[in-house]
Amino acid sequence: MAKVTLSADERIDQLYSRNIKIIQSPNVFAFSLDAVLLAAFAQVARRASNQIVDLCAGNGAVGLFVSERTAAHITAVEIQPRLADMARRSVALNNLDGQITVLNTNLLNVTDQLAKDSIDTILCNPPYFKDQPNSVKNPNPYLATARHELSANLDQILAVTSGLLKMNGKAYFVHRPERLDDLFAAMRAHRLAPKRLRFVHPKADREANMVLIEMIKDGKTNGVRVVPPVIVYQADGTYGKEVHQLLYGSTKEKR
Amino acid sequence: MAKVTLSADERIDQLYSRNIKIIQSPNVFAFSLDAVLLAAFAQVARRASNQIVDLCAGNGAVGLFVSERTAAHITAVEIQPRLADMARRSVALNNLDGQITVLNTNLLNVTDQLAKDSIDTILCNPPYFKDQPNSVKNPNPYLATARHELSANLDQILAVTSGLLKMNGKAYFVHRPERLDDLFAAMRAHRLAPKRLRFVHPKADREANMVLIEMIKDGKTNGVRVVPPVIVYQADGTYGKEVHQLLYGSTKEKR
Repeated sequence: MAKVTLSADERIDQLYSRNIKIIQSPNVFAFSLDAVLLAAFAQVARRASNQIVDLCAGNGAVGLFVSERTAAHITAVEIQPRLADMARRSVALNNLDGQITVLNTNLLNVTDQLAKDSIDTILCNPPYFKDQPNSVKNPNPYLATARHELSANLDQILAVTSGLLKMNGKAYFVHRPERLDDLFAAMRAHRLAPKRLRFVHPKADREANMVLIEMIKDGKTNGVRVVPPVIVYQADGTYGKEVHQLLYGSTKEKR
Repeated sequence: MAKVTLSADERIDQLYSRNIKIIQSPNVFAFSLDAVLLAAFAQVARRASNQIVDLCAGNGAVGLFVSERTAAHITAVEIQPRLADMARRSVALNNLDGQITVLNTNLLNVTDQLAKDSIDTILCNPPYFKDQPNSVKNPNPYLATARHELSANLDQILAVTSGLLKMNGKAYFVHRPERLDDLFAAMRAHRLAPKRLRFVHPKADREANMVLIEMIKDGKTNGVRVVPPVIVYQADGTYGKEVHQLLYGSTKEKR
């Protein structure tokens, strides 16, 4: 394993179902179930000649998770220098420098470095909350930027997504169900046809708190498929089978 | 019970969970689970001074189903004379002439008879399929009109819905998940904010084949709630508990 330097508040976490180690810090960013589910939901382009982009990459978790399933090059785009640096060190820690490039830039400027109409697959776990003047934001600026639309809003992110994708290229987003109306409006405004939705319910009898969505650039409208939901926890409070496998792999002994 | 005359191809069906009898004909129209689930999903205005409208009413099933839960007046709007006549006879059969009025008119002209901004609750089980030049339609014109957007399309129906509703009035639709993108676009175009979605899966491991949606005129955006899905059939092929209760009531003996 490559050697990397950790800051005092950082730790190395591993997703036990994969051989990926990720540098985390509760003070600035830690991936959560959203990233794990997004990576599992995405059908990423697989050939070495393909191009994948992870927007709003944070500490790089989503790109790292999908790297095992593809030979494509992955570009992780993150606006916050501290998080982009964590992502770079995680890439080195996993010896993936040949496959994953981290760009520390505002995604609104990403076409300065990535050609338009050139990307096969885009992954994005964006900030969930609108930047409203009276909204309560996390006083920690790292977390506030990751959670609130301070540097780019949903419409802008989908405009960039559409601009980067090849015709019929696919994008995978995770978001909050509350935002479905904004999400559908922005997809239609930017030539992205929704193709597949999967809702995530914390328990079988609770409302969904996440939605996973697959969209196709210039795809046919009115072809939305809603696949069976993810139920995170069973009635007894333990993880459901699917989520358990994603987090810990197929055998409990690994934990 | 009031006496009504049946045509040769008609029969009287009863939803065993309610005291409602409905005239059906497999040749022209028969209500299905869609109508039962829509009626159960809707939170209808209840006071005698309230106004409810059932658009694309067919044989009147949805309005008849909700009539037991409200003192409001219900207007059922149906374009096909034969179906409007069936609806009228079902209303008489249930002695509901005082509560339910059937209008045999194209909903595009309904504001000739109903005042704009006057309705508290709208219910609608619209035609599901677009009228595309090359689409295969039912050769039976009654069924073709009920299933394909021959006389009004989704955007027009939501325009009429918004026009009829009072500010903060609610509409309840059932539709196919494939059309979610058109549905969201038309809601936004006509000042209808989606508030609550419920997907209907034939079985737990199958894709949704219906979506129930609640919308509010001039409601706040970005407040969508996705409640736990309806699972129609259990793994053994029998109805799930919720659907069984809707169809047959709480005790199996009723069947």
